[in-house]
Amino acid sequence: MADSTNYAVPKGFKAAACSAGIKKSGKLDLALICADQPVECAGVFTTNKVVAAPVLITKSRVSQGLCQAVLVNSGNANACTGEQGLQDAKRCGDLVAEALDVAPELVAISSTGVIGAPLPMHCFEDSVPTLCRMLKEDQFEGVAKAMMTTDAFPKIAGRTSVLGGREVRLLGLAKGAGMIHPNMATMLAFVLTDAVLADGFLENSLKHAVNHSFNRITVDRDTSTNDMVLLLASGEAGNEEIVKGSPEATQFDNLLGEILLDLAKMIVRDGEGATKLVRIEVTGAASDNDALAVAKSVATSPLVKTAFFGEDANWGRIIAAAGYADAELNPDLVSITFDNVVMVEKGIGLGSDQETLASEVLKKPEFTVTINLGIADGNAYYYTSDLSYDYVKINADYRT
Amino acid sequence: MADSTNYAVPKGFKAAACSAGIKKSGKLDLALICADQPVECAGVFTTNKVVAAPVLITKSRVSQGLCQAVLVNSGNANACTGEQGLQDAKRCGDLVAEALDVAPELVAISSTGVIGAPLPMHCFEDSVPTLCRMLKEDQFEGVAKAMMTTDAFPKIAGRTSVLGGREVRLLGLAKGAGMIHPNMATMLAFVLTDAVLADGFLENSLKHAVNHSFNRITVDRDTSTNDMVLLLASGEAGNEEIVKGSPEATQFDNLLGEILLDLAKMIVRDGEGATKLVRIEVTGAASDNDALAVAKSVATSPLVKTAFFGEDANWGRIIAAAGYADAELNPDLVSITFDNVVMVEKGIGLGSDQETLASEVLKKPEFTVTINLGIADGNAYYYTSDLSYDYVKINADYRT
Repeated sequence: MADSTNYAVPKGFKAAACSAGIKKSGKLDLALICADQPVECAGVFTTNKVVAAPVLITKSRVSQGLCQAVLVNSGNANACTGEQGLQDAKRCGDLVAEALDVAPELVAISSTGVIGAPLPMHCFEDSVPTLCRMLKEDQFEGVAKAMMTTDAFPKIAGRTSVLGGREVRLLGLAKGAGMIHPNMATMLAFVLTDAVLADGFLENSLKHAVNHSFNRITVDRDTSTNDMVLLLASGEAGNEEIVKGSPEATQFDNLLGEILLDLAKMIVRDGEGATKLVRIEVTGAASDNDALAVAKSVATSPLVKTAFFGEDANWGRIIAAAGYADAELNPDLVSITFDNVVMVEKGIGLGSDQETLASEVLKKPEFTVTINLGIADGNAYYYTSDLSYDYVKINADYRT
Repeated sequence: MADSTNYAVPKGFKAAACSAGIKKSGKLDLALICADQPVECAGVFTTNKVVAAPVLITKSRVSQGLCQAVLVNSGNANACTGEQGLQDAKRCGDLVAEALDVAPELVAISSTGVIGAPLPMHCFEDSVPTLCRMLKEDQFEGVAKAMMTTDAFPKIAGRTSVLGGREVRLLGLAKGAGMIHPNMATMLAFVLTDAVLADGFLENSLKHAVNHSFNRITVDRDTSTNDMVLLLASGEAGNEEIVKGSPEATQFDNLLGEILLDLAKMIVRDGEGATKLVRIEVTGAASDNDALAVAKSVATSPLVKTAFFGEDANWGRIIAAAGYADAELNPDLVSITFDNVVMVEKGIGLGSDQETLASEVLKKPEFTVTINLGIADGNAYYYTSDLSYDYVKINADYRT
C-alpha cells in the first residue's frame, strides 16, 4: 500500500528513525527529519480545544515560517499532561537543538499515542543524541514506520515533476488510522519539497490541499488533540521561483493535492478494522456547502458504514442519513447510484434486480456511492471506510 | 426489563395485537390501540427531511387534537415509497375506520422496519378487520411486542398516582434499539392517560418530557424517517381538571417525564449490542447549552463507546471528545469522575491507583461519568451505551 519504492527524496533533507523504548513492543517509535539548513515551512494544526503540548509549541515556532528539524515520536501523545508536558516537549526540542547545534526555535516536535501519561523522558535523553548522528537520505521509510500507532502499514507518497525548468520533488509521510475525522483528527503528516517558492505561497497551498484531502476523510467521528501537517521547502531544486497565479503554481498545487489525497486515502484504507474504501459523491445540491454536509452525514453514519461492511446495498440508510444533514433536500428528487448501478431514481427504489447488481459493487474493496440531490449544481466528496468487528476490537483493547 | 407486570391500564383504552405476516418470522407485527371515544391527543415527530408516509398523515391528523385509534406495524417502515406509500398508509387507516365505524381523521398510523419496500397491503386487508374485533384491556404487552424490530425486549412503563382527588393512570409503550439518537430517532412511543387535562396542556407537557428523555439518549448517531411519540388522554379518571401552573400540573409533568425517561433508558439498555447503560453528566459549564453540547459529544464518540465496551477507563478519549464539542472549555479546569472515583482533577490524570478503582466501576452494567468543566453552573446529561461487536453484527446483517 505504501508506495515506498516509487519516490525520490527532495534535495536538502535527511532522516533517521530508531526504537527508543517508548513503545513497549520495541518497535520503531522515534524519528527525526532534518534539513541541511533552515528552510521555509507552513503548518496546519488540530482544531480540538484540548491541544497537546507539542502542538502548542510547534504551532508557535512554525508561525515564524522557518524550520530545520522535525522530531516525532509514537507511543505517547504528551496530551493532558499540564505544565510538565510543556516542559517535557520543550526538553525534547532542546535535545535536538543541542545535538545538531541549531536554534531551539527551528525544531518542530510532534507526538502521537496514549493521552494523559507523562512522556518517558529517559527514552528521549538516551536516544535523541544517537538519532541525530544517524541522519541519512534513505531513511524516510523508517520515519513513516516510527510514526505508526494502530496503523497497519507506513504511509508514503511522492511526486517528481519538471517545474520552472528543473526537476522538483515532493515527498509526503503520514500516520493515521483511528480517530480519523475531518478537521485534522489524530493524524500526522510531513511533506517535504525542494521547490523554490515565493514568500507566502507555502501556507495557502498547504491549507487548500489539506482542505481537499485530510478534511474529506472519516473513519469514525473523533478529532484528536495532536494533529499536525507540516510542509517544508528546501528550495534546493534550483527552479525558477514559483509565484502565486502562475501555471507553475497550479502545477505545484496539484502535485501537493495529489500527495495529500494519496495519503488521506491510505489512512481511510487503513481505518481501524476497515475492509473497504468508499467515495461518497454528492451532486445536484443547492450549493457546494450543502453537498459537503450531505456527503459528511452519509460518510459518518454508523448504520451506513456497517451496511457497507455487510455488503448490503441498503440505500434506505443512505437516504435517511442524507435527510438529517443540514442541507436542502427533497426526497422525491434524490437519485442514488453504486458505481454505475442506479438504485434509486427520484426517490423511488428500482427494485431487487438493481439490488443484486449493486451487491456485486459492494463486494469490491473500493467503490463510489453517488447521491444526486436533483436541485442545482453543488457538489462535494468524502472518503469513508466500513465499520467492522475489528474496529470495535482494536478500540476496545487499545490500552490493554 | 419491561416492567410489564407493574402497571395499570388507564381507563377508556383497549388494545389488540396479531401476526399479520409482515415479518417473515411470523412474530407479532400489527397492533391497534383504541379509545372508547375520540380523545385529546398530542404528538412529536421525526425531524428528518425524509419523512415516511404514515408520519406525514398522522402528523396532519394529530394536529387537530383528537384521536381514537392508533394502528402500528413493524417489519416495514413505508418510507421512501412515494405516492403509492401515501395511498397505502391512508388505506391502512381507512381499514381501521371502516371496521370501528369512526372517521378516518381519528385514526393515527405508524410504521417501523425496512425502508424503501412497498407495504404488503394484503397483510393489512386480511388482518385489520380481525384485529378490530380483538380489542381488550389486557393486550398492551402484545402491542409493545408487535412494535419491536431489532428490540430484544418489549418496553412498557406505567405510573399510578392520586391527582386532583382521583386515581390517575399513565401507561407508556415504546419501541427502539437501533438508529437511536436524539431528536427522535427510529423510535415509536405511545403514552396513554385517563387524566382530565385543560385544553392545550397536553402538547406542552409532551414536548417538555420528550426533550428531557428521548432527546437525551444515543446509541448511534442516526435519526430515522419514522419516529413519533403520541400522547392520548381519555379524561375518564374523573379528576379535577389539571390546569397549567398548578401543583397538579407539575405532578403530572413529573409522572410523564418519569415514564418517558424509563422508556428512554430501556431503549439505550437495549441499544443494538449494548452491554452497558452510561449516564454522561456535565457540570460546571458556561451554560446549559454548552453542557448539553459536551455531553452529546462524549456520548456519541465511537472511541469513548468502544472504550466502555472494553471496560477501559480511557479518560483521554473523554476529554478529547469534550474538546471538539462546540462549547467553552479550558482543559486545565476539567475534572472527570467515574461514579465516585476521581480520574482527572483540573486537567491532570490522578494515575494508576485511580484507574484501577475506575476499572471496577466500568465493570458495572450501569454507571455515571461526570465531567466538571469548572467554568460556571451549566449542566446537562445524556444516556449512552457501549459500542460492541454485536452492534456491528446486528447492523451488517439486518436485511439478510
